[in-house]
Amino acid sequence: MYKFNKKVLSITLGLLCCHSATAAVSIEEATAIQRSLITLDTHLDTPANLVVPGFNILERHSYGHDYSQVDVPRMQEGALDGGFWAVYSPQGELTKGGYEQSRDTALLRALAIRTMVSASPQVFEFATESADAEKIKKNSKHIVYMSMENAYPLGTDISLLETFYKFGLRMAGPVHFKNNQFGDSSTDPSGTQWDGLSPLGEELVAEANRLGIVLDGSHAHDETVKDMIRLSKTPIILSHTGSKAIYDHPRNVDDALLKQLAESGGVIQMNAYSEYLEKLPDDPERKEAYKGLMKLVKEGSERSVLLEKRREIDHEHPAVKASFEVYMEHFLHALNVVGPKHVGIGADWDGGGGVDDMMDVVNLPKITKRLLDEGYSKSDLADIWGGNALRVLQQASDYAASLKTAKK
Amino acid sequence: MYKFNKKVLSITLGLLCCHSATAAVSIEEATAIQRSLITLDTHLDTPANLVVPGFNILERHSYGHDYSQVDVPRMQEGALDGGFWAVYSPQGELTKGGYEQSRDTALLRALAIRTMVSASPQVFEFATESADAEKIKKNSKHIVYMSMENAYPLGTDISLLETFYKFGLRMAGPVHFKNNQFGDSSTDPSGTQWDGLSPLGEELVAEANRLGIVLDGSHAHDETVKDMIRLSKTPIILSHTGSKAIYDHPRNVDDALLKQLAESGGVIQMNAYSEYLEKLPDDPERKEAYKGLMKLVKEGSERSVLLEKRREIDHEHPAVKASFEVYMEHFLHALNVVGPKHVGIGADWDGGGGVDDMMDVVNLPKITKRLLDEGYSKSDLADIWGGNALRVLQQASDYAASLKTAKK
Repeated sequence: MYKFNKKVLSITLGLLCCHSATAAVSIEEATAIQRSLITLDTHLDTPANLVVPGFNILERHSYGHDYSQVDVPRMQEGALDGGFWAVYSPQGELTKGGYEQSRDTALLRALAIRTMVSASPQVFEFATESADAEKIKKNSKHIVYMSMENAYPLGTDISLLETFYKFGLRMAGPVHFKNNQFGDSSTDPSGTQWDGLSPLGEELVAEANRLGIVLDGSHAHDETVKDMIRLSKTPIILSHTGSKAIYDHPRNVDDALLKQLAESGGVIQMNAYSEYLEKLPDDPERKEAYKGLMKLVKEGSERSVLLEKRREIDHEHPAVKASFEVYMEHFLHALNVVGPKHVGIGADWDGGGGVDDMMDVVNLPKITKRLLDEGYSKSDLADIWGGNALRVLQQASDYAASLKTAKK
Repeated sequence: MYKFNKKVLSITLGLLCCHSATAAVSIEEATAIQRSLITLDTHLDTPANLVVPGFNILERHSYGHDYSQVDVPRMQEGALDGGFWAVYSPQGELTKGGYEQSRDTALLRALAIRTMVSASPQVFEFATESADAEKIKKNSKHIVYMSMENAYPLGTDISLLETFYKFGLRMAGPVHFKNNQFGDSSTDPSGTQWDGLSPLGEELVAEANRLGIVLDGSHAHDETVKDMIRLSKTPIILSHTGSKAIYDHPRNVDDALLKQLAESGGVIQMNAYSEYLEKLPDDPERKEAYKGLMKLVKEGSERSVLLEKRREIDHEHPAVKASFEVYMEHFLHALNVVGPKHVGIGADWDGGGGVDDMMDVVNLPKITKRLLDEGYSKSDLADIWGGNALRVLQQASDYAASLKTAKK
């Protein structure tokens, strides 16, 4: 049986009984508190690793060696219970053939998530209801919700959303880096095409509502997010997004939109993707070296060769990451603007996330410590670490259930 | 680790060294020989049980209690290594909505097969290549190929065949009890509609060929089977079918078609579905009682209640099954007509199969004993029990590979 170190937990919780919110909290204390909460990251790109030959989620890896950021030993150390494991699809051509290929790949990714869980029933449990998280936590297992980043693989066949729902999907975002059949992305170099959601995107929102899937506005253009808030019958989530007030990047949202999101009951989950957190210095040599690496990728070089090459480049031209402090600036700003009922965590692990001193899930308790140091309570932390995301999931499924009841 | 009783096996094989083909073979000897072969049933409807709450394939069940016919303990006892585990779809309306619902259910069934394997990696291994069977057998695991009975869930979107291929599908039959979008069934009360394959069915054949999926003509109308033989670039299989010369039923094939099948390299796998093996006496009282049971099914009664009721009916009005001898008549007839390179076993377990004295997989060695007694050699048995089915699978994948090579 797979268990947390309960002894350490109870001792440390004992010490905490008299903790004053303003005194600095030790990292051990913060870790212990975090362990007592349901801790979810709402955007884990880890499923991409599940289909990498030889990757074993049960074993400990290191970012320095294979660039992975999430596995069971590190989740345990970093007190992460689980989260929304993403079926991410890179966007191909907006054609029948492109859609079909992506549909298949996305279904296989969903299969990989499900087989990860079924292969280790003592370690993972698949979750579809909001209340599942607490039960799974009680059984000392890791929580696996399924989400979709980029609805591109649905093509123009909205009925496929139900297929994925039946596979367990409970959160979905319409777009990724580029505009697609469902609407505008925040980062398409060609600008907006639909001025928000497309007509098909509006159908997608209605279908997600009907099924009880939380809509995710991360990567969506501000106008798309606004359309989603306006049209969705239940609060939306930004599963991994930052504060535009701290860094003016299209992947972040400004305070007005943040407030609109919160007023509609929605949640922003703070993204730790360095390039979206602050302006990082250019490094043309590193860029050039990475072009060489990309060439090897295209030539189909072996993974071990690619990793060796990547480590070599990173040694010669070290990556510059945003600081943990800047991450927390985004975080604290969002908390200041909308409060702890509307902020959570979605650091884009295994999808590009990571800041200095927090390059994998091991160091997540730093966030907890910092928030406690700032005076946020354990109850606030419970909301931030999972309660808020679970609330919007509950609202999505309640609405879907209400439609079924109304039908009878 | 999960192993056969190797001691018993080696002792018994030792005894067999001087076995004369004409002397009667003991059931223990037959079992030992069967254990030494790759033994596949090409139509296991067992996946339907995988989605029954509480059904555990690793535990021993009994036909008398829950009507199941396949589980790991019984496979071990009956020396069945595995086979083609079917994604079976009952046919709904030939409409967009009907297709979509069935597509989802079929994908979930494929998921159930894959999670069965991933949940017990010491017991099962998923197979996609013909050569996998031998490797899996050597590792003392059970062999799981995936097949599809009724292509109805593909709707009119042939590209979905590749989706299932990617899930591991390696055998597919176009139709079931009724005609559908792909062609004519052997048992549609309205008669033929397409005079064989429909134009979409012809596309299905070409796509199966392109992918390397074995085409299965069981349940197909004779004209459909003829079309499949004519159009398919590789030999087809009848995964669970009988001999019309023994019993004139549409689900059986006559000698002319059998010969045509064999001449094209194909294989018939002998079906143990009693109603197709001989004319069974009518039992109006039993029929009436079953109508009552069906009413309970429709009302959504609990499974335990339904099983109790079914056992009660079967006690009061016992089912009449065909005899094992009649099954072997079909079997031996097919062997006489086309020889042991074109006959195999597909008894329709968990799909209606079963004859007196062989109501589950435990008694499979009776077949081996009977064939040995008839003078068939161990080498013939190797073909019948798996070699023939694996040959047509190899031919299907070779053809698909040749297309890829030609393309380059």
